[in-house]
Amino acid sequence: MTTQAVFKGWKGNDEKAVDGNLVFEEFEPKQWDEDDVEMKILYCGICGTDAAALSGNFLPIESPQICGHEIVGEVVRVGNQVENGVKVGSLVGVGYQSDSCRECTECKSKNEHYCPNQTVTFNSPYHRGHGKDNQSKGGFAKYWRGPSRFTIPLPEGLSPEVAGPLMCGGVTVFTPLERFGIADATEPKNVGVIGVGGLGHMGILFAKAMGANVTAISRSNSKKDDAMKLGVDDYIATGENLKDAFASYNRHFDLVIVTSNPPEFPINDYVSILKPKGAICFVGIVPKPLELGTISLISSNIVVTGSNIGSPEGIARMLKFAAEKKVSPWIQKWNMDDINKAMLEFQKGNPRYRYVLVNTDNGGKL
Amino acid sequence: MTTQAVFKGWKGNDEKAVDGNLVFEEFEPKQWDEDDVEMKILYCGICGTDAAALSGNFLPIESPQICGHEIVGEVVRVGNQVENGVKVGSLVGVGYQSDSCRECTECKSKNEHYCPNQTVTFNSPYHRGHGKDNQSKGGFAKYWRGPSRFTIPLPEGLSPEVAGPLMCGGVTVFTPLERFGIADATEPKNVGVIGVGGLGHMGILFAKAMGANVTAISRSNSKKDDAMKLGVDDYIATGENLKDAFASYNRHFDLVIVTSNPPEFPINDYVSILKPKGAICFVGIVPKPLELGTISLISSNIVVTGSNIGSPEGIARMLKFAAEKKVSPWIQKWNMDDINKAMLEFQKGNPRYRYVLVNTDNGGKL
Repeated sequence: MTTQAVFKGWKGNDEKAVDGNLVFEEFEPKQWDEDDVEMKILYCGICGTDAAALSGNFLPIESPQICGHEIVGEVVRVGNQVENGVKVGSLVGVGYQSDSCRECTECKSKNEHYCPNQTVTFNSPYHRGHGKDNQSKGGFAKYWRGPSRFTIPLPEGLSPEVAGPLMCGGVTVFTPLERFGIADATEPKNVGVIGVGGLGHMGILFAKAMGANVTAISRSNSKKDDAMKLGVDDYIATGENLKDAFASYNRHFDLVIVTSNPPEFPINDYVSILKPKGAICFVGIVPKPLELGTISLISSNIVVTGSNIGSPEGIARMLKFAAEKKVSPWIQKWNMDDINKAMLEFQKGNPRYRYVLVNTDNGGKL
Repeated sequence: MTTQAVFKGWKGNDEKAVDGNLVFEEFEPKQWDEDDVEMKILYCGICGTDAAALSGNFLPIESPQICGHEIVGEVVRVGNQVENGVKVGSLVGVGYQSDSCRECTECKSKNEHYCPNQTVTFNSPYHRGHGKDNQSKGGFAKYWRGPSRFTIPLPEGLSPEVAGPLMCGGVTVFTPLERFGIADATEPKNVGVIGVGGLGHMGILFAKAMGANVTAISRSNSKKDDAMKLGVDDYIATGENLKDAFASYNRHFDLVIVTSNPPEFPINDYVSILKPKGAICFVGIVPKPLELGTISLISSNIVVTGSNIGSPEGIARMLKFAAEKKVSPWIQKWNMDDINKAMLEFQKGNPRYRYVLVNTDNGGKL
């Protein structure tokens, strides 16, 4: 087994990195622990959070960062205490989260994604073992090393090139669909997906694969053709007048998922299109607080909630579902050597709908 | 069987009625339908909504109103199409809702309390049969007549004098406790009840009877002794500084029920005391919209919701639970002839914790 002291990857040194200034350099991976795995990276998706982190909009940039948290690769080294049965040669994925404390109530109940001391896959400290206080390094690199619990084996039948976007964006939309019983419904549920983008298009694909009646909700008609190809049953272009746009949708939806990040959100108009006991679930952050009236919440038992990624077991369930139902995100591939070009196009909002970086020298296929 | 053309009750003619100016007069009940029952009223609770309606704060007063919607009585007449097996001599209760359309999705799925064309027990039009367009008349009266579906038989072992407050206030707090699985939990859940009043004290009693760890949350310590007698495990006097008051309750509660009606509500501070996936449920209206941040909703999958009364089947389950577990609201009884004195005391906030009016001439016991 290899023991590399240094890895190589695309480093963001300051807030200009996001504008095509990532630098291919050596970096130190986390110190090895016996529950770690090491993989050669085949593919890594680009998520909005990477761009936010590289630009300093996510957290202040205190040290150079290796971003990328939709990582797929082939295991090249395993410790003697690995979890999840990962072996050398296994195809695995890593998402937004790379570790958790293992000691809190949430970790003990397999809800590691709620752990208050979790490690995000990029630029976040590990808290355990030899890796304690090491800064996490993500997937814009040739190799990745980290805890096996968050390194999820890919199921048979799932293409590794689309698995990256599923690891973060996919589970982000799958989790609320699962939580609100969309797949288990005896009658198809009415699901609305606000935003046809990286997250939204996966939300549409998963909801359709679960048998739901799916409506895409977007500002304009510019995404309508794509939404139809993704399989939506209906499309609402809200325009500027929500009341007109929603006139025939009163009490229509069982669940609406908000995948966009509008600066503010007219929550009370959206409450009106929910069925009694219906839910609106935010997976995209809205900077301005929602101004939420209590009367409609009370009269129809409406649920306003949010959702954040998923647990390792949730990710495994999502991957299994995607493999079985052939849920395949729409991706555009870039050689990872061209990451700076890809990042510039990403910043312009051009992905249709998810960019995946490919390490061809590691065996990834363009 | 009797067929009374006119009933007698305490009428509110204008917005001064709530200040002790209800007038005992004749009124016309709804026109008889064959799914109706008629009862002589033994007891009727006073709820905040009665006071709001009588003062014109609920809806504009367009015609004299007979309020009262926590009604308990003895059936004296049944139609030949009654539902729920109600018979002459049965003890029954009626709550906030007296009818629904029977035709919508909600009615057909036995969620009549979500029917968009429902009839409230006071000052609200009926929409069906001979009673169509008749204004509903409530329980501040000697007799009541209305649809049997909303006339719930009292179970064995439940004292009729405490059943009135259960019919509206009781089911209002029982429904969210049931919905969030408080009674079914394998480990006791942590339930917070904001406000120790008419609703809140019943919330405490039900949550305790379900086996929860219950914390009363109130502005001051003035209700602490009562809360302890009601069985709470803990009491938080929030004072003016919520952050201090909540310092040791981070991620503590599975469910917090808001039974008070503060002019505004610091929702984000309350979100911090909820466990991941925890819920805050409003049963009291807050006039000013909540300013709800999405980040904490997302990071911990918090649920913000509301709840309104319950379905006829939900009321029946609540009454059965109350009978089995001996849930007995704290009531103070008044002769219904003294309704104007009672209403003045009610307006001062003096109930500890629910006033029940008694028709002694009909057999109610003071």
